[in-house]
Amino acid sequence: MKTKFVKNAVGRMIPETINGKKVTPFKGVGKHRPTGNKYGPPIPTCIDFSSDGNKVVKSLNDALKKCGMKDGMTISTHHHLRNGDLVNNTIFDIAHKMGVKDLVWFPSASFPCNEPITKHLENGTINRIEGSMNGALGRFASHGKMKGTAVLRSHGGRVQAIQDGEVKIDIAVLAAPSSDVFGNANALDSSSSCGVLGYSKADFLYADKVIVVTDNLVDFPNMPMEIEGNYVDYVVVVDKIGIPEKIISGTTQITKSPDRIYVAELTAKFLEESGILKDGCFMQAGAGGTSLAIGNFVHQILKAKGWKSQVGFGGTTKYMVQMLEEGTMEHILDAQAFDLGAVASISENKNHHQYSVFNAYNYHSKGNLTSMMDIMILGATEVDLNFNGNVATHSDGYLLHGIGGWQNCLHAKNVILPIPLFRDRIPVIRDEVTTICGPGELIDVIVTERGIAINPLRKDLIKQMKKSKLPIKTIQELKDEAERICGKPRAIEFEEKVIAAIKWVDGTVIDVVKQVKE
Amino acid sequence: MKTKFVKNAVGRMIPETINGKKVTPFKGVGKHRPTGNKYGPPIPTCIDFSSDGNKVVKSLNDALKKCGMKDGMTISTHHHLRNGDLVNNTIFDIAHKMGVKDLVWFPSASFPCNEPITKHLENGTINRIEGSMNGALGRFASHGKMKGTAVLRSHGGRVQAIQDGEVKIDIAVLAAPSSDVFGNANALDSSSSCGVLGYSKADFLYADKVIVVTDNLVDFPNMPMEIEGNYVDYVVVVDKIGIPEKIISGTTQITKSPDRIYVAELTAKFLEESGILKDGCFMQAGAGGTSLAIGNFVHQILKAKGWKSQVGFGGTTKYMVQMLEEGTMEHILDAQAFDLGAVASISENKNHHQYSVFNAYNYHSKGNLTSMMDIMILGATEVDLNFNGNVATHSDGYLLHGIGGWQNCLHAKNVILPIPLFRDRIPVIRDEVTTICGPGELIDVIVTERGIAINPLRKDLIKQMKKSKLPIKTIQELKDEAERICGKPRAIEFEEKVIAAIKWVDGTVIDVVKQVKE
Repeated sequence: MKTKFVKNAVGRMIPETINGKKVTPFKGVGKHRPTGNKYGPPIPTCIDFSSDGNKVVKSLNDALKKCGMKDGMTISTHHHLRNGDLVNNTIFDIAHKMGVKDLVWFPSASFPCNEPITKHLENGTINRIEGSMNGALGRFASHGKMKGTAVLRSHGGRVQAIQDGEVKIDIAVLAAPSSDVFGNANALDSSSSCGVLGYSKADFLYADKVIVVTDNLVDFPNMPMEIEGNYVDYVVVVDKIGIPEKIISGTTQITKSPDRIYVAELTAKFLEESGILKDGCFMQAGAGGTSLAIGNFVHQILKAKGWKSQVGFGGTTKYMVQMLEEGTMEHILDAQAFDLGAVASISENKNHHQYSVFNAYNYHSKGNLTSMMDIMILGATEVDLNFNGNVATHSDGYLLHGIGGWQNCLHAKNVILPIPLFRDRIPVIRDEVTTICGPGELIDVIVTERGIAINPLRKDLIKQMKKSKLPIKTIQELKDEAERICGKPRAIEFEEKVIAAIKWVDGTVIDVVKQVKE
Repeated sequence: MKTKFVKNAVGRMIPETINGKKVTPFKGVGKHRPTGNKYGPPIPTCIDFSSDGNKVVKSLNDALKKCGMKDGMTISTHHHLRNGDLVNNTIFDIAHKMGVKDLVWFPSASFPCNEPITKHLENGTINRIEGSMNGALGRFASHGKMKGTAVLRSHGGRVQAIQDGEVKIDIAVLAAPSSDVFGNANALDSSSSCGVLGYSKADFLYADKVIVVTDNLVDFPNMPMEIEGNYVDYVVVVDKIGIPEKIISGTTQITKSPDRIYVAELTAKFLEESGILKDGCFMQAGAGGTSLAIGNFVHQILKAKGWKSQVGFGGTTKYMVQMLEEGTMEHILDAQAFDLGAVASISENKNHHQYSVFNAYNYHSKGNLTSMMDIMILGATEVDLNFNGNVATHSDGYLLHGIGGWQNCLHAKNVILPIPLFRDRIPVIRDEVTTICGPGELIDVIVTERGIAINPLRKDLIKQMKKSKLPIKTIQELKDEAERICGKPRAIEFEEKVIAAIKWVDGTVIDVVKQVKE
């Protein structure tokens, strides 16, 4: 039977079911109201746990067996060990040896080191990935080779789906740089330190079974307990959970490209002139080279004016720590540490706090941090004339990125996208984005090396910038300029097959990605 | 129709229903296995919350109205402000003015300052209290004057009942010494500081609606967020949530009574000779005068031997802080601070950790702290020849105390009850306790001023102490000695009416309390 498609609120055609489950098409920002109650995992009892609190079993293989791993289960993992992770692939190697089939891998993100997972997608161990599909895995999916349909969610959408019972995690396997025998775990003071485990909270709260995998068993109580042992079933001690130099990458450096530095400078000037940058503001910038440069400019402006940002939300780098230590930032809320400076700061600075994405990004919460942010610096692979943004696919149609916190961050008061006007001679501003990951009404400003476009919905900003000497243009002007230089980009052709669904922060489907025509 | 009664595993007759709900009679320690899933409160959405994170409403009255307070709802509160609390009674004054009837008050404990609640039990605003019934409220219930049947649970049983959906909290009203506008709250650095809010965790996690009441609104983010704003609906700012000198009582002093000091000394010697006291042990002692004296003796022994307790669990006092600071204790896990020394220590000492009863005491958890404790010092109003213990009623039949953490703590490796042989010439050791709050198999040692009785089930301890010079006796000998001095106590007569149920840690009913015959 052919799947029926319906048009959603941003005009994209959405299948009625995905992976055999009925889905709700995107209805517009703030238009979908959830019903029902949060998921409650099965009630455990102390009867089933050793009275001395010791949950250590001899291997991950044992732990997975004790958890009753079987066909069709959903296995969740976090990505705090990033490209140095040595745990996540192992799970599926074990599953394959056990002859288990059709698992759903539900990571908070995937990395190039997860490329070996493709063989388990091929051999039937894994049915599909519900999570980000960076690089090789995305290409695999884009070729239509994944058995099930991928589901991409933002970090906040992921925890919303867990909390609401939309995704039921059978087994969460959570790598931890340190744990005690009870399963209290954190990411500090270890050879595999990654600073924070902010992506594991929804997993341990809601998974039916929880396994902590560590290479550093410490005395009870292991404090702070970012993972609470009360939710943990088994603790596995291995030689090494990760490769330290790949866990904390050395790539968080301010850009040296003159074009990007110029974009960063334009952005900082815009923030200053528009009044968005102010004493006490809440701000978030990513760890990309341009974002870091913007952060640095902002740091200088704050310093010159004697101002202070009240809250910086991270993905944290040494640059943000510098702001904290030099007094231009009051608090860092941190869900993920990107470099060693950030990791060290968590232990050293009283106002550098671990803060989970569950608290920062969950749209099905009683408010969250995203909408309180004054300044939000984000990227995009494409933006269109309606300011709609794409972060998942490239202009060649390939699914090559996860959504990360991008959709969640769109809820900030001022969302600013510093982007190049073109990449590899392909214009970034399009008539229509290949994949809509975020609706244009939430994207306020585009800053490129050839000008700044303000969303017409932001009449206040347009008025404020009327007399500015900054190169304010319309988005149409920017697009025309790019096309004058690069030519009009060719339309991409897709096969019929839907290979991935893009969820919105409220669990509805905002777009789908189709198989690339070769 | 007459209620049918069934005999439970400790021989007590339990009605089939309490407050119209079917109950499960106690089946024995570790014999009742829960089924089903944890409760999930309704899914909220950011749509309903101000994007700037501000949840402040102008009064508690307003907040309760916005929460839709109506007849029959369950209202939960914590007891961290103890006898200085100025919030809890107010809720029911407001409810009374609003004409709301038949509420269930579900406090984590009640105090003498809650005596005014009796008028709302009389005027129909409150149907019953599910929680401790200290002093006046217990007497009121014991006279058969409460409309519904009281339900008493241990601190751990309370959070188990919340988590399992046995008690559904409609509105949690949580007083907090500091909060930001988002509802992130803690108990530090304020005129109403109480150090810890460890009793509020299950409430904010599982209540349908959560109100934070504070007299100290601070900048976002208020860290640490012992109450997480993500679960909070409304924040109310009042002049004063409590009377500081009554929040932290000055009564946590080592006993000066020679009899009690002797009991404390006997207990400490027993701990030492039996080998229960050892390097690295986990220990818990209460805040009563005798317990504190025991703690002090233990401190001296540890010091002399160069040993260290790895974990002390509190209710914390300055005496425990002294152990931490003088190096005879490695960590304090703290669910409740009893004096100013303890409150100050939480901010000052890195190894003094806030630790909720939800993590320490919940029997429907994947293990908890109680069974890991080596040394557990507890009290009792009565103990019987089978070592069964009573903490709720007095020997005159009146319900005058809450269970507190007592039942939970019985799961420790060595449970020791230092008690006087008689109180006001009434023997404490009885043929049968008036109310069974804990089964004898979990109580290991009774220490009185006239001798020490070891539970016959603890053959290891009996063997270990064979050559001791300490006055080891049988419990029968202790009982006979008490009766030689005070005479055989007179049996108490009760009416037929069940006025309270005593729950066990797993939600089953271990005993009931009947109306006192006047």
